[in-house]
This record gives sequence, structure tokens and C-alpha cells, in this order.
Amino acid sequence: MKIGLIGLGKMGMNIGQNLIDHKYEVVAFDVNVDAVDKMSQYGAQGTSRYKELVESLDAPRIVWVMVPHTVVDSVIGELTPFLTEGDIVIEAGNSHYKESIRRYEQLKEIGVSFMDAGTSGGMEGARTGACYMVGGDEKAWAVVEPIFRDTAVENGYFYAGKAGSGHYLKMIHNGIEYGMMAAIGEGFEVLEKSEFDYDYEQVAKVWNHGSVIRSWLMELTENAFAKDAKLDEIKGVMHSSGEGKWTVEEALNLQTATPVIAMSLLMRYRSLENDTFTGKVVAALRNEFGGHAIEKK
Amino acid sequence: MKIGLIGLGKMGMNIGQNLIDHKYEVVAFDVNVDAVDKMSQYGAQGTSRYKELVESLDAPRIVWVMVPHTVVDSVIGELTPFLTEGDIVIEAGNSHYKESIRRYEQLKEIGVSFMDAGTSGGMEGARTGACYMVGGDEKAWAVVEPIFRDTAVENGYFYAGKAGSGHYLKMIHNGIEYGMMAAIGEGFEVLEKSEFDYDYEQVAKVWNHGSVIRSWLMELTENAFAKDAKLDEIKGVMHSSGEGKWTVEEALNLQTATPVIAMSLLMRYRSLENDTFTGKVVAALRNEFGGHAIEKK
Repeated sequence: MKIGLIGLGKMGMNIGQNLIDHKYEVVAFDVNVDAVDKMSQYGAQGTSRYKELVESLDAPRIVWVMVPHTVVDSVIGELTPFLTEGDIVIEAGNSHYKESIRRYEQLKEIGVSFMDAGTSGGMEGARTGACYMVGGDEKAWAVVEPIFRDTAVENGYFYAGKAGSGHYLKMIHNGIEYGMMAAIGEGFEVLEKSEFDYDYEQVAKVWNHGSVIRSWLMELTENAFAKDAKLDEIKGVMHSSGEGKWTVEEALNLQTATPVIAMSLLMRYRSLENDTFTGKVVAALRNEFGGHAIEKK
Repeated sequence: MKIGLIGLGKMGMNIGQNLIDHKYEVVAFDVNVDAVDKMSQYGAQGTSRYKELVESLDAPRIVWVMVPHTVVDSVIGELTPFLTEGDIVIEAGNSHYKESIRRYEQLKEIGVSFMDAGTSGGMEGARTGACYMVGGDEKAWAVVEPIFRDTAVENGYFYAGKAGSGHYLKMIHNGIEYGMMAAIGEGFEVLEKSEFDYDYEQVAKVWNHGSVIRSWLMELTENAFAKDAKLDEIKGVMHSSGEGKWTVEEALNLQTATPVIAMSLLMRYRSLENDTFTGKVVAALRNEFGGHAIEKK
């Protein structure tokens, strides 16, 4: 089976190699020619032109799009003129599910099936076996299912339902991930401030063997402490790339109480600040009403 | 090796069988004679008398205490008159680490070593391979280490350091567990209120295969949905047994920000209420200042 692959970044490059390992013919596209070269060396047919990409595929064409969610519309806009009825576009990045529903409707007008595939497992998963949650039409799913089966870990793929349901699940997955990671972080924060002197790598290791909190995230925690026993080399700044925020926005829209996930998101924002205006206001007020000391700049 | 085992409840009964499977001679004590009978049928020597328990062991004696934390002092009080210098008491329940430090000091006065062993993995772990974090004197650790090695999963035990450090780690473990469980719960709460119609067993299953949030807790989530697809049979009342609260209390004592774990605890408390006085006060205030509708009883 021949597949067009658009986007050869951290995830796309690994998925491309994963596809080739599973005997797919990959026509690989990126605006970055170095990435195209690298993918070609692994056995893909490379191109930096949409027309050539599409013409290299057999109808009904299958195009796997793996780009940052901010450029999905532009990629689809460039791609669409060359697509014809019956083609299938798989969008396996981290788009907002409402955007995916809109894109599904948009491509439906020209008879092209749009599948929203939430992808988890990081770069390692993309390379050797990912986890997919896929939304879209069941008819198109029947065509593309083997691709997901082949590049996922065993049982690591799932037809989630109608358009948007795949990216929705991925959004919630990431929301849960935010909460879990915050809980792990806070636990070690208390250990670090405690009267005891723990070897955190050993702590994470024992928690990965038989404990209730054993998990892939705790394994990653163990790896991180193995590399840097007290994480002295890094700062506690927690960036985020959108899906935690979307989970909380969705919870707000649904008037649903998700305080733990929301708090994990807000604490990421707090970590971006060296000082806070909140803090200044509260310190000033304590000083105003009680004469409590303030720390001068 | 001969071991005295005090407490044949959900955890003790399983640890006892685990010990016997590993060729330990177990002298089993419980006030509940039915539990003693059951343990005797599995090959233990049973008793409901402390004196008999201790006299059945060879010095230096090893006594494994696995009882609710509220009765540990009473058990130790009954046991102590019969113990002599060099004996070792392992307390493998969920005690507060400060209590464990106090008990360590108390038993030290009569030359008895006290080990605080945090135990994780639930009943299944206790039966077939638990996870232990153990605090106490290194000299006593050298004597009892084989017991932990034999009844733990591979790599599932760890000498954590001085007295109290084992139960402290177990406390933090449970704090992390509270946060992780709340994040999982909230994620499914949003799914349940969403416009999509997911099969939650399938969702949990796919998340257990290759995703970032794969974990034992997500496996238990899958099991729970397999038994009851929408959990229609149970109420969302979340009880707690102390260690989450202790984690938050410790964080407060250390002036450490653990908002996610704290929130997961507070939401458990919220779940115990059918209605809240907070809600009444806020509803009344909205009515007072803005004439907003209130719901009458």
C-alpha cells in the first residue's frame, strides 16, 4: 500500500520509518529538504511539491498529515486542489476536535474522507508502536485500519466514532496526563523538602515494581532521575502545547467540575513566571491592613 | 525462617499465604478465630494469644504486624511484654510516619528493632508480589531483607533509610495516587458529558496500549468498565483512609505547594456530601445582590 506522508518532524519522521518497516511505500513531503533527504535515505520517495506527492499516489489516495496543528489548514489548503473523490486524509497531529469536525465537513464537500487520529506514545511510540484514537466515517476506517494496526502497539488503536471523536479523546488523554504529571511532581516536591534523604531514582524504580502508581510516566520519572539525580540541570518551567487548556475549556463549556486537571494547567502557567502580580497585590494588602513585612525588590 | 504475623485481614491474610508459598513458617495471630482457622488451613500455626505467638518463635524473633493504623499501638502494647532484646517488629500497615518514628524510639528502649514498611499493590500484590518501602536500622534491614525480597515482585522492595522513611514514602505514594485517580476520573467525567458516545472500556483499553497515560490505575479503570459499562451500579462517593490527608498536612507543615493533590483530597470530601452549606451560602448571596433564582428544597 502506498501512503503520502506530509510532515517529517519529530513525529512524522518516526511514523514514516515505522510505515516503511511495515512494507508500506511512503511518498514523503516536507518543506524542509534535509528532512526529505533523510526520509528518502530510509527508503521513501521524497518531494517538496504537493502536486508531485499526490500524483505519486494511486487512487483512492491516502495522505497522512503529521504537522503542528497551527499549519494543518494551510497544508490542507495546498493539498486539496489535487485530491479527488474517494481520497482519504488522515490528520494524526494534535488538532482541536472542533477544527477536525470543520475539516471533515469541508473535505466531505469534495468527496474526500477526513479522519482525525489522536496519536499518543511520544516519539518512541511513533517509531516502534504508537497508540491511536481515530474518528471519522466507518467506511474510510475500513480502508485505513490496517495502517493503524501495523504501526500501533498490539491493541493500541481504536475506532472512536464520528468525526472529531479521535482528537477529542486525545485532548482528554492529555488532560489526564497533565493531572498525573502534576501529582507525580508534587509528590517528589514534598520528598525534596522532607527530613529524609531519598534516592529519587530508587524511589521511582520501586514505585514501578508492584505499586499502585506504576505507570509509564513513573518509568520516565525514573529515567529522568537516572540521568540527573536531583534534576539540577533543568528549571522547573512547565510549558504546554494546548491540549490541557482545551480540556479545561471543554470542561468549562460543559459546566463540568475538573478542578484537578484545571489546577495542573494553572500551575504550569504559574511556573512560567519568576514573580507574580498576584503575589505583589497580596503582599501589599497584608502590609496595608496588618503591617506585615513586604520583601522589597 | 519463622515469622510471627499479627493481623489476618485483607492484607495480612494474603501476605501470610505469600510467606507460606515462599517456605516461611508462619505463626499467625488474629482476634478473629475464623481468620486464624483459615490461615491455619493454609499451613500456618494459629493462635489468638500474644504470649503463645511470641513463645512459638525463635530468638531473635521477627513479628510482622499488618493491622489498621488505629490499633497498632494497642497491638504493640500487648506484644511488647513478651519481646526481648534483638527482636524485630515490622509494621507493614499504613501508619503515619511520625507514629512510626515514635514507635521506633519506644521499642529501641528495650532493644527491639522497629521497621516501618510501606506496602503497596493492593490485595493482589500482597498475595503474589507486593511493593515495599522500608525504613529503620540498617542492621535490622540486613536480617529481614530476604522476607521482603521473597514476597515482593522483582525489584519491588527498597530500603528507604532511617526510621519513618518507609511510611513517609508510602504516604507520598498515596498522595500521588489521589491526584492520578482524580485526573482519570475527571477525564472520564468530561467524556461522559461530551457530545460523543464512547465505549469507556475500549477507551481505557486503548490508553493502556502505547499511550503516555498507560498505568496500572488505567488497567483497573478498564476492569471496572468491563464489569459495569457506565458504572451505573455504584455511587460517586469517594472515601479516603488517611494517607492523602497526611500528604496534604505534611505539605502544609513544609509550606509546600501541592494544589493538585490537595484538590483531589478536597474533591473526595465534596463527594461525601449530597448538598453543601457552601452552595447554600453562595446561592443565597447571588439572590441577595442580584435577585438570581434559588432552588428551594
